[in-house]
Amino acid sequence: MRKVYMDYAATTYVKPEVLSEMLPYYGSIYGNAHSVHSYGREAAKAMELARSRVANAIGALDREIFFTSGGTESDNWAIRGVVSASKKGKHIITSQIEHHAVLHTCEQLQKEGYEVTYLPVDEYGTVSLDALKAAIRPDTALISIMFANNEIGTIQPIAQIGKIAKENNIVFHTDAVQAIGHEPIDVNEMNIDLLSISAHKIHGPKGIGALYVRKGVRINNLMYGGAQERGKRPGTDNTPLAVGFGKAIELACTDLEARNMALTEKRYQILNGVMSRISNVRLNGHPINRLPGNLNFSFSFIEGEALLLSLDLKGIAASSGSACTSGSLDPSHVLLAIGLPHEVAHGSLRVTIGDDTTQEEIDYFLRELPPIIERLRAMSPLTVED
Amino acid sequence: MRKVYMDYAATTYVKPEVLSEMLPYYGSIYGNAHSVHSYGREAAKAMELARSRVANAIGALDREIFFTSGGTESDNWAIRGVVSASKKGKHIITSQIEHHAVLHTCEQLQKEGYEVTYLPVDEYGTVSLDALKAAIRPDTALISIMFANNEIGTIQPIAQIGKIAKENNIVFHTDAVQAIGHEPIDVNEMNIDLLSISAHKIHGPKGIGALYVRKGVRINNLMYGGAQERGKRPGTDNTPLAVGFGKAIELACTDLEARNMALTEKRYQILNGVMSRISNVRLNGHPINRLPGNLNFSFSFIEGEALLLSLDLKGIAASSGSACTSGSLDPSHVLLAIGLPHEVAHGSLRVTIGDDTTQEEIDYFLRELPPIIERLRAMSPLTVED
Repeated sequence: MRKVYMDYAATTYVKPEVLSEMLPYYGSIYGNAHSVHSYGREAAKAMELARSRVANAIGALDREIFFTSGGTESDNWAIRGVVSASKKGKHIITSQIEHHAVLHTCEQLQKEGYEVTYLPVDEYGTVSLDALKAAIRPDTALISIMFANNEIGTIQPIAQIGKIAKENNIVFHTDAVQAIGHEPIDVNEMNIDLLSISAHKIHGPKGIGALYVRKGVRINNLMYGGAQERGKRPGTDNTPLAVGFGKAIELACTDLEARNMALTEKRYQILNGVMSRISNVRLNGHPINRLPGNLNFSFSFIEGEALLLSLDLKGIAASSGSACTSGSLDPSHVLLAIGLPHEVAHGSLRVTIGDDTTQEEIDYFLRELPPIIERLRAMSPLTVED
Repeated sequence: MRKVYMDYAATTYVKPEVLSEMLPYYGSIYGNAHSVHSYGREAAKAMELARSRVANAIGALDREIFFTSGGTESDNWAIRGVVSASKKGKHIITSQIEHHAVLHTCEQLQKEGYEVTYLPVDEYGTVSLDALKAAIRPDTALISIMFANNEIGTIQPIAQIGKIAKENNIVFHTDAVQAIGHEPIDVNEMNIDLLSISAHKIHGPKGIGALYVRKGVRINNLMYGGAQERGKRPGTDNTPLAVGFGKAIELACTDLEARNMALTEKRYQILNGVMSRISNVRLNGHPINRLPGNLNFSFSFIEGEALLLSLDLKGIAASSGSACTSGSLDPSHVLLAIGLPHEVAHGSLRVTIGDDTTQEEIDYFLRELPPIIERLRAMSPLTVED
């Protein structure tokens, strides 16, 4: 059976050129990067190249990059680390459509005595700058707004948010896990103080990410232990994965514009194909200002899980929302926040494509999807004649 | 130049058979283990085999194993997670010779209002059971004592500590990062409630570890986010590394006794060789009750860093303590705790060997070490005639 992967936002395969840079560090160059001997020095050298590649990708200094175990740790560390070290107060501003790594951290902090404002978004998933300004208080310690949404792909006005944060002397964190490698990012131009990224969304290995922390930003540790990462993030340096991350981010940020245009073209092809073949469907997220490879549809009278399983039987891998919440019966908090009723949110499908998505795959998807929708609607007790 | 690696306690190379099990998960089986589709299901299946292998190695149930990013995270999570969820009180008992992942976590908790008793150790680095009993209070929430020390190799009376903890209804955590794969571990026989382990010390990949949490033990999250690891540890499942960890721990726990005997024999050969060739040297740690591959020497009138660099020039990789504290000028807290004066603690050398350490490597080490010691002593202002 044909296998078509359209779940690039969940995770990606590791590119062969990334893996081939990693492999020596599993074999001969296996030293602990904090050891004094030659094995250690070789590993340390590789760590520094990797750090430099990550820094270059976002316009940061090498010393502002701290490797973590992934996006979730970066988000947890950024938020908890900043607010617990802040002298401004205990108020946090975030949005209703953040990843759970941000939302659940904020909810936990509320239990610990912090106050959190969850900004609403408009029907396209965009945060209002006026609402942000209105939410700012003298005791606001942190603004955390994601760069681009993992479910509906909507890109936030990050540079403007950064400007507002700076004008108000508030630390600004953004979860850029979905944006890195797809949108150009410059932490200085955009006034970003902290930024979370992860390797496995950009053809790097799972289990490594980074937190950018602007020089001078006060942040407490999330974990305590050895002196690694300049005393801020303990644990043996993960040389093979850092090397893979460095290579992956370098590749992901090369020819960004050309790759985005190609990806956007494929996206429109799928969008037009779906819209012309299927009735009672809406596109969730911003029509234009969205991640190039992201599509999120709601099909009326359809149950998302059944749709995914039907697609899977045809070899097509897609998603109903984020993989991190699978198993949950609750509809997506993102789709509810953009105003979808529960029953429509339940019938949503996230299709995320990548550079490798082929014309044949797109054709196959557009051929297989309509009869599945038709069959599921015929079985659905919710269906009404239109 | 010959290269001789004698720093197995810092980290180990990934065994080819471990890497070969990992590789498919970087290539074709790259799905997110929490995705509904076939890519996800294949990854989920691999996660469960890996979990089961880890569980088997310590006599645990699969559902009691939670993957983490390594030993440091496991230690941080175990300690903070248990004491913050405890209804017993805010007192922690640990020892003076724990890894910094435990010690610095405890020190941080002291700043947050917890009380910590740091048990002293005897000249061999063994915790006294009487001191432990005397330290127990009605509000003791946790006992955290490492299984075996990373610097001097001393193995603690874990089963007896577990019994005391159980009799007093106190949760017992042990950092077994150095012990796993070297000492037989059974969490039930030893009454261990939480146990930290890591893959990269046993020829598995860096960046993955596990925390065993006995069914029924109350523990809060260290991080918040997705629903992975039964809601207790968010972040995309690290399938390749989990697979590698599973294979590595299975290999490390196979023929444990025979391998330990062979390793112990090599250790005695080095010990006898050093003792007979060099004067003014002492073995740190317990003479018998220690990790099979661990040796820790103090050479009087020697500066440890100079010794390491001289060995490195001969291609020999060893350590002055733990790699996690390199760059620090403070003498090892472990060596101070067993009663060494500062100047002697500064002249220490940790030599840790593995299954692959050859007779030729041992001979080379025993041939190269004495003239280095002699030369450094001749240069040392501390040297006295004996």
